[in-house]
Amino acid sequence: MTQELIAQYNYINDILKQQEIYTHACHVLQYDQETICPPKAMEEQGEVSAALGNMAFKLTKDPKFIEAAENLYAHRGELNSFDRALIDDLHRNYLKTKNITPEMNHEFSLVYNRAFVTWLEAKQKSDFSIFAPSLREVIEINKKDVSLREQALPVLYDNLLGDYERGLTSASLDECFGKCKERLLPLLEKIKNSKKVIRTDFLSRHADEDKQRKFARYLLELMRFDFERGSFTTSEHPFTDGLARNDVRITTHYHEDMFYANMYTVTHEGGHALFELLQPQENYDHHINGLKSMSMHESVSRFYENRIARSESFIRLVYPKLKELFPDVLGDVTERELYEAMNLVQPSLIRTEADEFTYTFHIIIRYEIEKEMLAGTVKVEDLPALWNEKYRQYLGVIVPSDREGILQDVHWTFGMGYFPTYALGNMYNAMYYNRLKNELDIDALVAAGDFDTINGWMAKNVFAKADRLSASEWIRDITGRDFTPDDFLDYLEAKYSAIYEL
Amino acid sequence: MTQELIAQYNYINDILKQQEIYTHACHVLQYDQETICPPKAMEEQGEVSAALGNMAFKLTKDPKFIEAAENLYAHRGELNSFDRALIDDLHRNYLKTKNITPEMNHEFSLVYNRAFVTWLEAKQKSDFSIFAPSLREVIEINKKDVSLREQALPVLYDNLLGDYERGLTSASLDECFGKCKERLLPLLEKIKNSKKVIRTDFLSRHADEDKQRKFARYLLELMRFDFERGSFTTSEHPFTDGLARNDVRITTHYHEDMFYANMYTVTHEGGHALFELLQPQENYDHHINGLKSMSMHESVSRFYENRIARSESFIRLVYPKLKELFPDVLGDVTERELYEAMNLVQPSLIRTEADEFTYTFHIIIRYEIEKEMLAGTVKVEDLPALWNEKYRQYLGVIVPSDREGILQDVHWTFGMGYFPTYALGNMYNAMYYNRLKNELDIDALVAAGDFDTINGWMAKNVFAKADRLSASEWIRDITGRDFTPDDFLDYLEAKYSAIYEL
Repeated sequence: MTQELIAQYNYINDILKQQEIYTHACHVLQYDQETICPPKAMEEQGEVSAALGNMAFKLTKDPKFIEAAENLYAHRGELNSFDRALIDDLHRNYLKTKNITPEMNHEFSLVYNRAFVTWLEAKQKSDFSIFAPSLREVIEINKKDVSLREQALPVLYDNLLGDYERGLTSASLDECFGKCKERLLPLLEKIKNSKKVIRTDFLSRHADEDKQRKFARYLLELMRFDFERGSFTTSEHPFTDGLARNDVRITTHYHEDMFYANMYTVTHEGGHALFELLQPQENYDHHINGLKSMSMHESVSRFYENRIARSESFIRLVYPKLKELFPDVLGDVTERELYEAMNLVQPSLIRTEADEFTYTFHIIIRYEIEKEMLAGTVKVEDLPALWNEKYRQYLGVIVPSDREGILQDVHWTFGMGYFPTYALGNMYNAMYYNRLKNELDIDALVAAGDFDTINGWMAKNVFAKADRLSASEWIRDITGRDFTPDDFLDYLEAKYSAIYEL
Repeated sequence: MTQELIAQYNYINDILKQQEIYTHACHVLQYDQETICPPKAMEEQGEVSAALGNMAFKLTKDPKFIEAAENLYAHRGELNSFDRALIDDLHRNYLKTKNITPEMNHEFSLVYNRAFVTWLEAKQKSDFSIFAPSLREVIEINKKDVSLREQALPVLYDNLLGDYERGLTSASLDECFGKCKERLLPLLEKIKNSKKVIRTDFLSRHADEDKQRKFARYLLELMRFDFERGSFTTSEHPFTDGLARNDVRITTHYHEDMFYANMYTVTHEGGHALFELLQPQENYDHHINGLKSMSMHESVSRFYENRIARSESFIRLVYPKLKELFPDVLGDVTERELYEAMNLVQPSLIRTEADEFTYTFHIIIRYEIEKEMLAGTVKVEDLPALWNEKYRQYLGVIVPSDREGILQDVHWTFGMGYFPTYALGNMYNAMYYNRLKNELDIDALVAAGDFDTINGWMAKNVFAKADRLSASEWIRDITGRDFTPDDFLDYLEAKYSAIYEL
């Protein structure tokens, strides 16, 4: 690199460090809002957050910063892979935000924050009409945002999808979800008609929150979550925040009549946390630690939740601890009965509590609704009816309230395009699981609780380059193959045919 | 006001609003560090906080802001009492910080933050030597800070005392604490020699954290803490943060072998919270909501903790609930036995767990040590020995470890001068309690749990002008009398003579 490029690189580094002061504070403020901030303080705190976020945004408008970043982009071939990932990302962001002023950006933040506050209230009161005006605003803001981008893609939705998964298009999703429907809907019929009886009577037995807290802690220690570099608490809607180099936070939510929900929330969020904690530390030095895509992240969280924690060997591992903590729940339940119940296929209302099999339909429903919302083929006030109709059609369930229906998820408070990444995650991990099981005796490792070895394999093969590659490059790098939902569909077919004796 | 003054006032208002964005974030970051932030993330988060705090500080260096504030100060007679309080405070701050550059201010913050981190570690490891280098830095920074002030007072310590209580001097404290020693030490001897036996066997019986959490919630509801405008959680060291207009946060700490500790922490922090929540809302509009002094605050928290929650009528009120939640602790304990035990005089190690009678000695010890630290008549490495000697001398207790000795309090991580305000608080509330009991049948109100009436009296008489007056003006405004420790000492004498049958 020339002296000029080095000076420009250093300038960028300084600006990004300044920016990270604001974004760090914004993360803490957001975390605080989701865990402890009092209801009537939400709006003011949201305004503080928006103001700080906008200060971070303003820094990207610095002409010297833009010139430096664009010049480095022109010389991207001379950069190492970490810096190239950074400079490519700055270039993409530049194209996206070139025409967005700090004033507009601030206005967007205020809309999202208002939407979050009204969503909370609407969900609490189970009344979609409270959230509807905010949702209309969010849709308009999403559209306005895309209309201002340089080199925007012709299909509006594809731009939003690309924000969470670079290169993802609705055409490819139509194909992928088409395959899912084609193979999973007939299989779901067979499962529904199967004579196999899975015991479920114990699932709603009372499990003390206090005991569940102990079990959550046990699980996180098992998974080697680092409590010195992370924290664990509760929130209405569980989440993970990779807040800083030594600060990865996860939350859960306890349901005393669903002891297992916490187990799968913790293994899921624990998976997200491991991805953050075990990424290369150079990612932080080069400011690219946030570049892993949402579906990469979901692939990892669902790897731990579904591929590990719903396996027979994992149930074998945790069964004694569960029985010790919850004798009234599991006293008369065998290990096999527990395994089957944890893999019960049960079309249901709530995405985050859905079984692995029907989960994809929860996503397909949201995906189809998002497409319609953005195309304007449905009015916002008619969304609950559309939602409820799709749940009836795909899953055969009747939605009794907005709270258990269209208001269950927070995501639409900040826009469309996020949900599909959840479904893709399952498909990615099915692909890399097929490589992993050729290299490791995964069942034996899980049964032995040897998470060091499993996490080590994941860190080396799955986590290492995630922030430097697009999802399609990344999955090819791990597996040597192009993305396909087939591995996932094969896995579901085999696993559930066995459980349901089809 | 002239057009010029109005324009200057508006300019100041704008700057203060900007400043509040940073200070709001700093409060949340600090709250987060005390409640949930992972250990290894503390330092980075402290740096973020210091950077944001310094941005707030930089705003006060704006020449236009200074000119406006000083010009308004010259016309302070034309301002209403809220604005005058603000402008007076800006003027005092200007004199204090005129010669302190943002670089120095940032350096100060980093020192305090480092001190907090090392204190946490030192306390955990019960090893003062870990904290000693930081404490030396804090003392130096305190001295440097004062040396840079315009119109500094001749006695170094008085400047620091004045930061927490405007006008407070070590000469007046020497006199006040002299009186306390004179009257309380002989009384303590009498209590020690009294034949009265107070039952204590039940005090260390096991009380589930979970049940204590329920009891804490019950107490806060009783006191009319507003959960819509406040939050409640746990931290190592309990505190209250009046974070924003609709955001007042309190914490407690549960000790399963001291069920009553939580009760007095909650009523204490609950008192702080009521002071914040029930202050005039105009205080926020005029940016003066943070001007109430620390001893005013402590007077209120101790009013609720000691004057209310250690009274016979309060024990009558909560006794049934305590018995219901903790049958194993209180099954064989009468109401009178509980009252006496909650007022046990027991010289002990930990300030925050001290009884109302010996509490003042914990403060006198810290006060005397602070004077020596600042005068340089004791070396930092010799502080634990001095601490332990004073505990032996005044209270007759042997300090077994630094954790239970000199490392117990967080305050010295940010400097000297704070502790005396705790003792003054008791003296102020003794004065206004004597007025209150002439106007209200306080015992009947407490026994009936009528906190609306009690809080209403406090809001009207004690809270209303606190941010607009100095403590000495304020206590005169409430009681018509000048400050004196006599009411407090009379109260202790009467109460404990009765309990100990002297």
